[in-house]
Amino acid sequence: TSGTVVSSHSTAASSELPASGLRITLTAGPTREALDPVRYLSNHSSGKMGYALAAEAVALGASVRLISGPVALSTPAGVERIDVESALEMQAAAEAAFEDSDIFIGCAAVADFRPTEVATHKLKKQAGEEQMQVVLTRNPDIIAGIASRSHKYRTAGQPAPLIVGFAAETRDVAHYARDKLTRKRLDMIVANDVSTPGLGFGSDSNAATLLWHERDSIAQQAIDACPKFALAREILLRALTLHHH
Amino acid sequence: TSGTVVSSHSTAASSELPASGLRITLTAGPTREALDPVRYLSNHSSGKMGYALAAEAVALGASVRLISGPVALSTPAGVERIDVESALEMQAAAEAAFEDSDIFIGCAAVADFRPTEVATHKLKKQAGEEQMQVVLTRNPDIIAGIASRSHKYRTAGQPAPLIVGFAAETRDVAHYARDKLTRKRLDMIVANDVSTPGLGFGSDSNAATLLWHERDSIAQQAIDACPKFALAREILLRALTLHHH
Repeated sequence: TSGTVVSSHSTAASSELPASGLRITLTAGPTREALDPVRYLSNHSSGKMGYALAAEAVALGASVRLISGPVALSTPAGVERIDVESALEMQAAAEAAFEDSDIFIGCAAVADFRPTEVATHKLKKQAGEEQMQVVLTRNPDIIAGIASRSHKYRTAGQPAPLIVGFAAETRDVAHYARDKLTRKRLDMIVANDVSTPGLGFGSDSNAATLLWHERDSIAQQAIDACPKFALAREILLRALTLHHH
Repeated sequence: TSGTVVSSHSTAASSELPASGLRITLTAGPTREALDPVRYLSNHSSGKMGYALAAEAVALGASVRLISGPVALSTPAGVERIDVESALEMQAAAEAAFEDSDIFIGCAAVADFRPTEVATHKLKKQAGEEQMQVVLTRNPDIIAGIASRSHKYRTAGQPAPLIVGFAAETRDVAHYARDKLTRKRLDMIVANDVSTPGLGFGSDSNAATLLWHERDSIAQQAIDACPKFALAREILLRALTLHHH
């Protein structure tokens, strides 16, 4: 288990933490996609999982940069936080952080779509208008873009960050997660079932399955419901193991 | 000015506060309209103005019920808070509170539209699908419904609450506010320009113009930028004056 990683590290060099010298970039929280100056499309991500990861990454000795959507959380001690609103802003911040990252963890619940047109003034209701159509445009898949860039760098023999993605699903969790791991060229994915009452979005606890490439197959590790900071540590230790290989 | 109301009351009966014995119901915050279990449509209302009104109403001696959308604020002391998410939930809570209210203040930024269909499972992205259409249905106008009911009660000689609405606009503020005051049969409206940087949504300060029916015309009072609790007190004192007439 990943617990071994901690003990081996702490035995090998008591003064050195497992993530010492590593730069970890994380995205967290939801994004907000403006319809007009007051209305937006968003989702129920509280940012707690990403913030727990940031805090634990600092505890493990990493230098941590947190690219955060709008959340009601305070910045963990020692974390460099970059605030963004929309998916396009988050993507720009993520791409800018790429070269300076050893591990990149995409934990944000990025809005899949944004309104195609953003009104400058608040949209007025028209008398008698009982329905309204909003046309949405697909947002870029930030983590897939980062992972694709990482793949290109590696193919060219250049150093590139290890990429960890998240999959929040309400059904067929393992199926969609395996598909995303491969299709998006991620090194590892954290899959969780957000339909479980009391877990996931907004909660302080979470359960997850970690999936990663191991030789020619996909290995996995199930983590039972536990506080988000404990899950964060398991995720980071697994990512560190993969990074060290 | 409305300041006279306080002094006349405190002179008349030092033990009695201006809103003693009155039941004030308020709505506050945004509503969230679900697209699926994780996504929603909402707006930038922080709830601060409504919560300031609730706190000041308690300070003025009223019995206060606060129907609140999702906000990151704690309940002011002495306030009965009812949490809701969607416009339909807020409407049900508001209608249930109607008969038990002397003054009803609709401060919530109710979403005008909600997704017509709510998916049970998280909507999956389809490969190649670059655009998406969301059909929205108009939400009921909660404060207009409450005001119309109040108007009917009064016409029938029955007691009914005084109705105060809000108009958050980004342009032509006075024009839209006068129109809403009359068309929605409100007794008073609080109009503010949310396009002013540093004021309105999310801010601790606000400026507003109060408009109300006085004989055959519409009277108004401009309140310069001030902390939301100070604006809340001006609004409540004006509403109390109208209620006592």
